[in-house]
Amino acid sequence: MTNNVDILRGNRLSKTSDLASSFISSVNDDLPLIEPVKKINIAHMIMLVKQNVLDKKTANKCIKTLKLIDDSFKLNSSLEDVHMNVESFVISRLGNEIGGQLNLAKSRNDQVATAIRMISRTSILSILTNIHELQKVILNLSKTHTDYLMPSFTHLQHAQIITLSHNLLAHYDSLSRDVERFQETYYRVNKSPQGSGAIASVIIDVDRDYIAKLLGFNGIIENSIDATTTRDFCIELMSNLTLLMLNIEKIVNELVLWSTSEFSYVEISDEFSSTSSIMPQKKNPVIAELIRSKSSIIIGDLVASIGIIKSLTLGYSIDIQDLTPRLWNSINKSLSSVHLLTIMLSTCKFNKESMFKNLDDTMIAADLANYMASNYNISFRQSHHIVGTLSKQALVTDHPLSYIVKNNLIKTTKKITGKTIKVTSDEIDSIFNYSKNVNSKTTKGSPSNSETNRMIKLRQVQLTNSSKFITKEQNSLNKSEILLEKSINNLSGGGN
Amino acid sequence: MTNNVDILRGNRLSKTSDLASSFISSVNDDLPLIEPVKKINIAHMIMLVKQNVLDKKTANKCIKTLKLIDDSFKLNSSLEDVHMNVESFVISRLGNEIGGQLNLAKSRNDQVATAIRMISRTSILSILTNIHELQKVILNLSKTHTDYLMPSFTHLQHAQIITLSHNLLAHYDSLSRDVERFQETYYRVNKSPQGSGAIASVIIDVDRDYIAKLLGFNGIIENSIDATTTRDFCIELMSNLTLLMLNIEKIVNELVLWSTSEFSYVEISDEFSSTSSIMPQKKNPVIAELIRSKSSIIIGDLVASIGIIKSLTLGYSIDIQDLTPRLWNSINKSLSSVHLLTIMLSTCKFNKESMFKNLDDTMIAADLANYMASNYNISFRQSHHIVGTLSKQALVTDHPLSYIVKNNLIKTTKKITGKTIKVTSDEIDSIFNYSKNVNSKTTKGSPSNSETNRMIKLRQVQLTNSSKFITKEQNSLNKSEILLEKSINNLSGGGN
Amino acid sequence: MTNNVDILRGNRLSKTSDLASSFISSVNDDLPLIEPVKKINIAHMIMLVKQNVLDKKTANKCIKTLKLIDDSFKLNSSLEDVHMNVESFVISRLGNEIGGQLNLAKSRNDQVATAIRMISRTSILSILTNIHELQKVILNLSKTHTDYLMPSFTHLQHAQIITLSHNLLAHYDSLSRDVERFQETYYRVNKSPQGSGAIASVIIDVDRDYIAKLLGFNGIIENSIDATTTRDFCIELMSNLTLLMLNIEKIVNELVLWSTSEFSYVEISDEFSSTSSIMPQKKNPVIAELIRSKSSIIIGDLVASIGIIKSLTLGYSIDIQDLTPRLWNSINKSLSSVHLLTIMLSTCKFNKESMFKNLDDTMIAADLANYMASNYNISFRQSHHIVGTLSKQALVTDHPLSYIVKNNLIKTTKKITGKTIKVTSDEIDSIFNYSKNVNSKTTKGSPSNSETNRMIKLRQVQLTNSSKFITKEQNSLNKSEILLEKSINNLSGGGN
Amino acid sequence: MTNNVDILRGNRLSKTSDLASSFISSVNDDLPLIEPVKKINIAHMIMLVKQNVLDKKTANKCIKTLKLIDDSFKLNSSLEDVHMNVESFVISRLGNEIGGQLNLAKSRNDQVATAIRMISRTSILSILTNIHELQKVILNLSKTHTDYLMPSFTHLQHAQIITLSHNLLAHYDSLSRDVERFQETYYRVNKSPQGSGAIASVIIDVDRDYIAKLLGFNGIIENSIDATTTRDFCIELMSNLTLLMLNIEKIVNELVLWSTSEFSYVEISDEFSSTSSIMPQKKNPVIAELIRSKSSIIIGDLVASIGIIKSLTLGYSIDIQDLTPRLWNSINKSLSSVHLLTIMLSTCKFNKESMFKNLDDTMIAADLANYMASNYNISFRQSHHIVGTLSKQALVTDHPLSYIVKNNLIKTTKKITGKTIKVTSDEIDSIFNYSKNVNSKTTKGSPSNSETNRMIKLRQVQLTNSSKFITKEQNSLNKSEILLEKSINNLSGGGN
Repeated sequence: MTNNVDILRGNRLSKTSDLASSFISSVNDDLPLIEPVKKINIAHMIMLVKQNVLDKKTANKCIKTLKLIDDSFKLNSSLEDVHMNVESFVISRLGNEIGGQLNLAKSRNDQVATAIRMISRTSILSILTNIHELQKVILNLSKTHTDYLMPSFTHLQHAQIITLSHNLLAHYDSLSRDVERFQETYYRVNKSPQGSGAIASVIIDVDRDYIAKLLGFNGIIENSIDATTTRDFCIELMSNLTLLMLNIEKIVNELVLWSTSEFSYVEISDEFSSTSSIMPQKKNPVIAELIRSKSSIIIGDLVASIGIIKSLTLGYSIDIQDLTPRLWNSINKSLSSVHLLTIMLSTCKFNKESMFKNLDDTMIAADLANYMASNYNISFRQSHHIVGTLSKQALVTDHPLSYIVKNNLIKTTKKITGKTIKVTSDEIDSIFNYSKNVNSKTTKGSPSNSETNRMIKLRQVQLTNSSKFITKEQNSLNKSEILLEKSINNLSGGGN
Repeated sequence: MTNNVDILRGNRLSKTSDLASSFISSVNDDLPLIEPVKKINIAHMIMLVKQNVLDKKTANKCIKTLKLIDDSFKLNSSLEDVHMNVESFVISRLGNEIGGQLNLAKSRNDQVATAIRMISRTSILSILTNIHELQKVILNLSKTHTDYLMPSFTHLQHAQIITLSHNLLAHYDSLSRDVERFQETYYRVNKSPQGSGAIASVIIDVDRDYIAKLLGFNGIIENSIDATTTRDFCIELMSNLTLLMLNIEKIVNELVLWSTSEFSYVEISDEFSSTSSIMPQKKNPVIAELIRSKSSIIIGDLVASIGIIKSLTLGYSIDIQDLTPRLWNSINKSLSSVHLLTIMLSTCKFNKESMFKNLDDTMIAADLANYMASNYNISFRQSHHIVGTLSKQALVTDHPLSYIVKNNLIKTTKKITGKTIKVTSDEIDSIFNYSKNVNSKTTKGSPSNSETNRMIKLRQVQLTNSSKFITKEQNSLNKSEILLEKSINNLSGGGN
Repeated sequence: MTNNVDILRGNRLSKTSDLASSFISSVNDDLPLIEPVKKINIAHMIMLVKQNVLDKKTANKCIKTLKLIDDSFKLNSSLEDVHMNVESFVISRLGNEIGGQLNLAKSRNDQVATAIRMISRTSILSILTNIHELQKVILNLSKTHTDYLMPSFTHLQHAQIITLSHNLLAHYDSLSRDVERFQETYYRVNKSPQGSGAIASVIIDVDRDYIAKLLGFNGIIENSIDATTTRDFCIELMSNLTLLMLNIEKIVNELVLWSTSEFSYVEISDEFSSTSSIMPQKKNPVIAELIRSKSSIIIGDLVASIGIIKSLTLGYSIDIQDLTPRLWNSINKSLSSVHLLTIMLSTCKFNKESMFKNLDDTMIAADLANYMASNYNISFRQSHHIVGTLSKQALVTDHPLSYIVKNNLIKTTKKITGKTIKVTSDEIDSIFNYSKNVNSKTTKGSPSNSETNRMIKLRQVQLTNSSKFITKEQNSLNKSEILLEKSINNLSGGGN
Repeated sequence: MTNNVDILRGNRLSKTSDLASSFISSVNDDLPLIEPVKKINIAHMIMLVKQNVLDKKTANKCIKTLKLIDDSFKLNSSLEDVHMNVESFVISRLGNEIGGQLNLAKSRNDQVATAIRMISRTSILSILTNIHELQKVILNLSKTHTDYLMPSFTHLQHAQIITLSHNLLAHYDSLSRDVERFQETYYRVNKSPQGSGAIASVIIDVDRDYIAKLLGFNGIIENSIDATTTRDFCIELMSNLTLLMLNIEKIVNELVLWSTSEFSYVEISDEFSSTSSIMPQKKNPVIAELIRSKSSIIIGDLVASIGIIKSLTLGYSIDIQDLTPRLWNSINKSLSSVHLLTIMLSTCKFNKESMFKNLDDTMIAADLANYMASNYNISFRQSHHIVGTLSKQALVTDHPLSYIVKNNLIKTTKKITGKTIKVTSDEIDSIFNYSKNVNSKTTKGSPSNSETNRMIKLRQVQLTNSSKFITKEQNSLNKSEILLEKSINNLSGGGN
C-alpha cells in the first residue's frame, strides 16, 4: 500500500495480502466509469460553489486538474477503485488542503450509482441506434422480397404459404417492442442518485436537482437509501437485453437452419462465414452461431446479477460491485451482436427457387376449407372433413391436391354432407394458384402484397419516430455538457 | 380416443399411448383459459355476422351454447386442450352443421395467444392492486414511525443514523418503479392477435380491429406470424415479476434478520410465525421465509421460460405450451406473496428501544468531518484525518466519540493542520445529538422529519394516481364486456 | 384450526388466516412422502425398543396403527404437513398416552430429510432403468443401420461421411456417462440423517446405525446439523437430471430437424406426432418438442432450487420446503421424457435414400489431403493446398470433385510443390467410394463397420453391468424391507 | 488478413470486417490452452513416427520448434485461435514442407477438446488441494473450540445449544462430499478425445491409446463424434463448482451475519475487512461479501453454459467456444474464493462471551420433554405439553425456565397426566446445566465433546486419504510428462 492510500483512507486493509487486494479491486472493470466520475466530481464542485459551501478558487483548481484526466488515465489497482484513483490524482497534484475537498459532501456510494446510470443511459441510446439500423435493413429487405413465396412453419413443419417479406416483418415488429422497452427504461435509468452520500444523505446543504441538471439527468432518485442501494435499473436493463437477444436469436436461428445444405433458403456472405480452403462449398455460419451463444451468455449474466442482489438487505454491500461487469458485458455483447447481424443480413442472398420448390398444394388445404365454409352452405367442420378426405386421397395416390380436388370435390361433398355444390375448374385453379393465395389474404397483418406494402409504409414512419427519440435524448445530453462547460467557464472567469 | 376427436381432428395421434396423450395434453393448466376462450369464440361469431360471413341464426345458436359454459365446465383430457373441449361441447349440443362453424376463420394458434393475453392483463391489474395495498401500509407505517431512530447499514455493518420511516420509504420508492413497469407492460400485453389464424392469417375477410374492440384490447398485434408466435410479453411480464420479488425480498430479508434474538428490531405477529408450544418464545418467521423462497421459484420459472423460447424459430411450436403454466405460477406466487407481506407488515411491532440501543457516536463521525470541512478553514480530507484520529482514540480508550471530540478536537486540529479553530462544547453536543443529527439533514431525500413528511405527502398523491390507472383500465375492460353483451343481444334480437 | 393441532403443536399459528395456512402447508407436495414417513416411524419405534427406551407394547400398538396407512390415506391440509398428519392419525386412534410416543426422540427436521432421501434413491433406480431401456433401443438401432451412410455435421453444415450407427453410438456413449453419475450420486443420497433431531441430535440414546440399516441406507450422515440442513444431494441429483436432459435433447433436436420436409431423414411414427386431418402429410413432432421444453423446465427447477438454498445459513429453514416439489417435478419430467423418447425412437423410420442423396465428393476432400500427405512425399499443408485448389475448380465448373481430381491432381501437385506424383485412376475411384471411405477408417472410435461392430459388442457387456447395479441396489432395498417386517414380527411376537 | 492465414486456411473469412474477426477470435481466452496444445502437437508427432506415418527428422524439427513456445508466446488475434497460432509459428520457422505436417491426421476439433480436458483435470487437482487446506483449517478450529457453547439456529431463530466445533464440523462434512464429487468427475474428465479428427476420425492409422498415454490420460473417449462434440464434462465440473460455492457460501453467510454489531460472534481480521479511517470500529466484511457474490457469478456461468449447448445437435459448433471462458472463470473464481476463505477463517476470532450470552434455558425445553418421556411413565406428547405449559409460565413471569420447572414440574405433571413423579432439584439443575446438556448428547453425530473428538480423529484420517488421491493423480500426470520427454529424446537420438 502506498502513502496515497494512507492519506485518503487510513489504514484500510493495510495488511491485506495481494490476493485479497486483487479480489476486492474493481479497477479492471472501472474503465468505463472514469469519464462519468470525472464529470460528477466537476459538477459536484460547481454545485458546492453555488451553495456557498466551497470557494471558487479551490473549485477552479480541482476542476482544472480533473480536466487533465483523459483516455490515457491509468487506474492503479492498489488504489482499489476509480473513485480513489481520481481523488488520489487530484491530491497528488494539488496537495491535501485543496485536493482534499474533492469528496466533501459526497461518497463513493452515491458517486458509483450515478456513474453507472450515466453509462447505462448512453448505452441504451447506442442500443436503440443499433436496433434502428437493423430494422432499416429488415424493412429494405421486406420491400425487395415481396415476390419470394415460401412456406411458413409451425412445429418446423411446412404450414401455409407466405412471402419472405411477411416473415421479415414479423422480426421487424418484435424489435419494435424492444425499442419501446428500452425507451421506457431510459427514463427510469436517467435519474440522479448524486447527493445521497453513503446512505443517509449528507449534513451539508447540497442541491441535488442542480447537480442532476448539470449531469443531464431528468430528475433524481429521491430517498437516499434507495438511491445508493438499488440496482433494479441494471436488472431491468439486462432483462431488456435478454428479450432483445431472444428476438435476435430467432433471426439467427433461421439463418443457421436456412443455410444448411438441406434447406438452402439463404446464402450467408463469405464475410460472415468461415469457409474451408479444402471444402470451399462449405460455409460455416460462425457469426450467426456466436450471436446465438451470446444470448446464452447474456442470460447467464442476468441470472448472476439477480443472484447477487437477491439476498441483500438495504444499504450498499460490495457484492454489487460484481454486478457491474455483467452489465457492461451484456451491453457490449448485445451491441456487437445486433450490429453484426445488421451487416450480415444486408449481405444475405435469399434463394427464391429453393423456397418455391418447397411449396405444394397441401399448404392451401386449410384455406380451401375456410373458403368452402364461407362460400357454400356447409359448416367449417364439414368442409374440413371434405378437404381432409381429399387430402388423404392425394397423399395415397401421390397426386397434387388440386388435381384430386378438381376430380372429386363435388362427389365427396355430396357424400359427406348430402349437398350438391357447384365449383368450376377455374375456381379451383384460382384457389390453388400460390401467388393468388397469398395475395387474397388482405385482412390486417396478412401476407398479401397490398397488406405488406401498407405495413412497410407505416413502419417507415415509426422508424423515423424512434429515431427522433434518440436524437431528442442525445440532444438533451449534449445540452447538459454545454451547460457544464459554461458553468466551468463562469466559475473560472469570476475570480474568487 | 373418442369419436369426438374423430369428428374434430381426424385421426390425430390415433394410436398414441396414454403416456404420450397426457404428455401432450395441456388441460391441467388450461383452467384459467376457459373463460377467455369462451369470450373469444363469442366475439369471433359476432364479428363474422357483421362481416356477412356467417348467418345470425347459426351464430346465435352457437353463442347461446357457449354461454352455458361456466365454472362447472369440466375439461376432458382426451380432448387435448381447452379449444377442442369447447368446440366439442358446442358440436355435441348443436351438431356438426351448426356447431361446426365455431372454428371458421380462426385457429387454436391465434386463439390461445389471445386468451393468454386476456388473463395476463387482468393479472397485471391484480398485481397493481396488491402493490398498491402494500405501498399504502408502508406509507402508513412511515407516518407513524418518524421518531424511531435506528442505524442504517452498509455491508450489514452500522453506518449512519436514520429513522425507520426513512428506511420504509426506500422500500416504497422501489415499489413505485415496479408499478411503472407493470403499467407499461400492460399496454404491450393488451393487444389482440385474434384473426391471425394458424400463422398466415385467414382467407376470409375478418375484421381484426372489431374483434379486438369486442374483447377490450387497445389494438392488435399486426403481423400474423408475430401475433401467433411471440411470447415476449410473457417473458417481459415474468421479468417484471422477478424485479418485484427482488424488491419484496429486500423487505422480507429485513424482517427475518430483524426478528432474530440478536437484532430484536421487530416482532412478527403470531399469525405470520410458527411458534412452538414447547418454546413459546420462539417465533419462526415462516411466512417471510416462504416469500423469500418464492422469489427463487419465480426466477426459476423465468429461466425455464426463456429456455423454452430461446431455440425456436418463427411459427407456433408446442414447446410454448409448457411456458404458460410457468406464467400462471409466477403470477399466483407473486400475488400471494405481496398480499401476505402486506398484512404481515401491517401487524409487525417495531422495537424502538432495541433500535436506539444500537446507535452510538461513531455513526456521526462522517457528518462531523463534513461539518468541519464546510464550517472551518480545512479541507475534507484533513477534517477526515482529524476525526479519524479522534475516533481511534475513542476506540482505544473506550470513551464515546463525543467525549473525545470535546477534549481533543482543537488540539488535534492544530497538530494535523497547524490551524487553530474555535468550537464550543455546545456546538459539539448539538452535533452528537442523534435526533438533531437526523433532522439537520434536509436536502432532498434525507432522513429528517421535515423531508420525510414532505415525501410522504407527495407519495400519497402518487398512490392516488396509480390507483386511477387501475380504475381506468378496469373500466375499459368492463365497458368491453358490456359491449359484448349488447352485441349478443342485438344479434339475437334481430332474427336472421 | 382443529383440536388435533392443539394437541400436537400448541397454539402454533393459531390465528393465521387461511391464505397464510395454505402458503405454509406442504401437503400438496407431500404425497410421495407418506410411505417413507410411515416406514421411518415404524423403524424408529423398533429401534427405541431395542434401546430399551420404549416398551414393546406401546411400540406394537403404534406400528399396527401406522400400518393402516395406505394409498387411501388423505392428507389434511390444516395439519400442515405429512408428519403432523401421520402423528395425528395415530393419536386419534390410540390416544395421547400411547400415540403420543410417536415423536419421542425425533423431529420433523431429521424425518423429512430421511424421507426425501428414500424417495430420491428409488427415483435414481427408476431413472437408471429408463436410461437402460433407451440405451438398449439405441444399440439395437445401431446394429441394424450400419449401412445407412449419411453426412456428419459440424456447424450444421455437411462435414464427412459417417453411418447412422456411428451417430447413434455417440448418443449411447453420452448416456453411459449419465449412468455413471447417477450411480455415484446414489451412494451419497443413500445415507441416513435419521436420529439427528431438529438440529442438535437428541438427548436419548438412539442407535442411528441400526435405524439406517432397517431403512436400507448404506450409512449415516453423521453431523446432526449437516444431516438436517443439507440439501446438496437434491441439487446434485437435479444437476444430473439436467445433464441427462441435455443429452436427451441432442437426440430430440435431431429428430425435429431430420423430420422437416427439407431434411426428410426420419419419419416419426404417428403415435408420437400430431397430424392434421386436413393436411395428412403433416406430422408435427409434438412429443419431441415437449421433451425439448422439459429440459428447459428442469433447468428452471435447478436454478430455483439453487436460489432457495443459496442465501441460507446452517439449520433448517422452511424455504427448503419449496425445493422438494422442484425435485419431484424434475424427476417425473425426466422419467417420462426418457421413456417416451425410448418408444418414439424405437418406432422411427430412417430414410436411407434421403441421407445418401445428401452425400457428395467434397466430404472426402479432407481425407484425400491426409491420404496424400501420408502416402506421397508432400506435407499436409501442401496437400491441403492442392486439394483446396481442385475443390475450387470443382465448385466453379460444377463437376464432382472426383472428376476434377482424376484430371488435374498430378498437374496441380506439380504446380504447387514442384513434385511429380503417380496416382492411378483406380486409386482415386477407391478413395471416392463413399462406403469404402467410411470403412477405411479403422482407428478406435471410427465409423467403419468393423469398428462399429466392435463397439456395439463392448457396449452390450456394459449394458449388462449397468443392469447389475440396479438389481444389486434394488435387492439391498428389498432385503431391508424384509428385515423391517421381520423386526415388526419379532416385536409383536415377544409380548412386553 | 496476413499471408500466414492464406497459407494455412485459404481465403477463410478473407473479407471479414475487424469486428467480425474479433467476434470470432478466441485468442483472449485461449491463453491457458497454449501449453496443452503444444504438448498435444508433440505427442501427436511422436505417435505418427511410431505408426510409420511420419519420418523422424520432420517430427524432430517440428518438436524442437514447438518446444520454443513458452510463457512469452504471444497470440495473434488475426490468426483466430491458439491452434492456428501454433501452426503458423512452426511453419514460419520451418517452412511449409516441414511445418506443414503439424496438422496431419488431426483437427482443431479434437485438439481443443483434448486441451480443455487437460486444463480441467489440473484445475480439479488444484481445487481439491484448496478444499483440503480449507478443511484442515476448519478441523483445527474445531479442535480448539469445543468449549465455545453457542445457540444453534433453525429459521435463524435460536434452537438448541451446540458448540462452535459442532457447527464447524457440519461445514467440514459438506466439503467432504464436494471432494468426492470432484474425484469422481476427475475420472470422466481425464479421457482423451485426441485422434477423432474433425468429427469422423481420420483416414490415417493413428494410435489413440498411445497418444492418450503420452498425455497422461487414463483412457479415451471412443466414439469420434462424441469425443469432438461433448462438453458434458464442463457442465459437470461447473455443477460441482456450484455445489462447492453453495457450501462455501454457507460459511461466508455466517461470517457476515456473525460479524454484525448485533451478533458479535466473530471478528474478521483486518486483513479481510475494509475499515474506515473515520469509523475505525467499522469492519466491512468485504472479502466475505465478494465470495458470496462469486457464487452468483458461477451460477450465472453454469446457466450460460447450459444454454450454449442446449439447442445444439451432434458435431462441433463454434457456440461452444463461448463456453470455455465461462469454465475458466468459474474455476478461477472458485479457487480464489476457497483460498481466501481458508486464510480468512484461520484468522477469525470467535467471541465466546457473545455466544454464551445468547444461551438461555428454553433451548433445553425440547431435551427436557424427551428426558421426561423416556425416564418417567408419560408419553412424549404429554411431556411436551407439560414443558410447554411451564415454558409459557416462564415467558409470562419472566423467570428462567429452570426456576419454573423446579417449582412447578411435579404439580403440572399431576394436573396434565394425573401422575405423580419424583424429580429432584439436583436432577433439574443437572438438566439445565448448558455444558452438561451438550455433553450428554452422545449418539453419533452429536455435539458432545466426546463425539466431537471422535469425529475429528476420523476426519483427520479422511483428510490424509483425500490428500493421497491428489498425490496419486499428480504423480500419474508427472510420469506422463517424463514419458513424453523420454519419447522426444528417443526420437531425436535415433536419426531418421
